[in-house]
Amino acid sequence: MGERTNITWHQASITRAARQRLSGHRSLVVWFTGLSGSGKSTLSHAVEQRLYEIGCRSFVLDGDNVRHGLCRDLGFSEGDRMENIRRIGEMAKLFAEAGVITLTAFISPYRADRLRVRELFDPEDFVEVYCRCPLEVCEARDVKGMYRRARAGEICDFTGISSPYEEPLTPDLTVDTGRLSLEQCVDQVMSCLKDRGVLPQP
Amino acid sequence: MGERTNITWHQASITRAARQRLSGHRSLVVWFTGLSGSGKSTLSHAVEQRLYEIGCRSFVLDGDNVRHGLCRDLGFSEGDRMENIRRIGEMAKLFAEAGVITLTAFISPYRADRLRVRELFDPEDFVEVYCRCPLEVCEARDVKGMYRRARAGEICDFTGISSPYEEPLTPDLTVDTGRLSLEQCVDQVMSCLKDRGVLPQP
Repeated sequence: MGERTNITWHQASITRAARQRLSGHRSLVVWFTGLSGSGKSTLSHAVEQRLYEIGCRSFVLDGDNVRHGLCRDLGFSEGDRMENIRRIGEMAKLFAEAGVITLTAFISPYRADRLRVRELFDPEDFVEVYCRCPLEVCEARDVKGMYRRARAGEICDFTGISSPYEEPLTPDLTVDTGRLSLEQCVDQVMSCLKDRGVLPQP
Repeated sequence: MGERTNITWHQASITRAARQRLSGHRSLVVWFTGLSGSGKSTLSHAVEQRLYEIGCRSFVLDGDNVRHGLCRDLGFSEGDRMENIRRIGEMAKLFAEAGVITLTAFISPYRADRLRVRELFDPEDFVEVYCRCPLEVCEARDVKGMYRRARAGEICDFTGISSPYEEPLTPDLTVDTGRLSLEQCVDQVMSCLKDRGVLPQP
């Protein structure tokens, strides 16, 4: 740090590359999309656990920590969903910039919204993972009782029931969350991250 | 990882404490406030540089990476400034949750807005740093020519000229950025972080 001098106020800046060196791995955004109950949040947290075990820094953005905070002024209309996804995309970009492997778990039902997010990133920094699970399976699970309420008309604009879900046409990875075990799904995501050169070199 | 089994889809969750262990240091939010030209952004980047040199993970949120992204739909009216600060507060909370020492550099002129952000945090997780610099000094620097334009009436609602700046009454730290060298200011912030037990144990 040297001796104290009356230096001018130059702007220092730690780069993303420097942060990645400090972490020992590359950062990027893994964007999970799929129906409510398709396992996006559970899968992303399980991937986070696996990343943690090999010393990687990651963070999950999902409804639990975003809908009650950053986006608590937004509802579920088409316009509000669009703004919700836009904000999450911008925040995810900063997390990746900070050197964190950023996992997002939102239904994100519209192709146009997901495309707009993708366009924020260099191609190697964004992975869209489609959690493919038949509506019947999601509805049968109905972990939070939301499908029942949507069928009863108690919830409007519920994806898959009263609001569309637009399947990804060319996702970077499709995981059959309705058919595979959680561990099998995690393996597929980790394998994708390995292929992308994200994980630390052994 | 052991053998593959048809485990149920339990939700794993890496805690903030676990992330802090991985990083080797505590995380929190350092909230810089002060007039335009008082040195918030330069100081926060210089602190980031110093933190990087001792292996700490940090990230600066400032106008450059927030106003053109997450908050690009917002202007500078009182209501928009409030929403701007609210979103930044919520985002900073998630960054801290992710184990990152989060430095925010925004004028944040209103006490009520800063208080609302502070209330999102446990007391030990939020440090308000007042970058104290006389308006005359900020205006004389006028790095971006904004004061000149505000005086000419070309910019409305410009803090210090046509919009109020409410000084912090009880900031956690006051740094005289108008009088001290950058390095002296960085020393004061680092010393504050050391006192708070944020920095790694030697």
